[in-house]
Amino acid sequence: MLPAFARTPQPPYYAVIFTSQRSDVDDGYGATADRMVELASRQPGFLGVESVRDATGFGITVSYWAALEAIAAWKAEGEHRVAQATGRRQWYSHFETRVARVERATNGP
Amino acid sequence: MLPAFARTPQPPYYAVIFTSQRSDVDDGYGATADRMVELASRQPGFLGVESVRDATGFGITVSYWAALEAIAAWKAEGEHRVAQATGRRQWYSHFETRVARVERATNGP
Repeated sequence: MLPAFARTPQPPYYAVIFTSQRSDVDDGYGATADRMVELASRQPGFLGVESVRDATGFGITVSYWAALEAIAAWKAEGEHRVAQATGRRQWYSHFETRVARVERATNGP
Repeated sequence: MLPAFARTPQPPYYAVIFTSQRSDVDDGYGATADRMVELASRQPGFLGVESVRDATGFGITVSYWAALEAIAAWKAEGEHRVAQATGRRQWYSHFETRVARVERATNGP
């Protein structure tokens, strides 16, 4: 079980905002999702991840990275490429991926 | 009910990534959350919002904005200021707010 909140450094750093709607196809989704978190967390430049999905299957995962190069390397990672293709083909009815540069961060309470 | 996915324009634009853990205090939370979405969506520069919270009370809300000025104006809005103070005092056990510049976006399938 992941801690819910990512412990990120002072900005600037990068965020990949992945919003998705799950299809009703399971076929190994959960195990692959867990494996991708494990694999991502060992990538150079990985800073953390926050992820939530509700009972309707709509989810938001935000991963944090030190640099755009780290995001590009993760996108190109072999096992991740297979998971991306499977996700596109069967696990998601729709998704949006946004790459953003975090400029400031606050927290509370 | 909101559509799950925000229909954002071509980047660049801005995202406010708000991750939060709800406390066990209700006290008008749901009505205020709905009201804030309604109010935000009428603010100049508002582009959309995506939000999900799971059964553990952990949630991610990402709102999208045309410019940093629009985010600053929303943060300073009167009713929103009251909601922020109440959130900090009783609705959330912890939250993180990150302001980020969306540089590219893709979607599928």
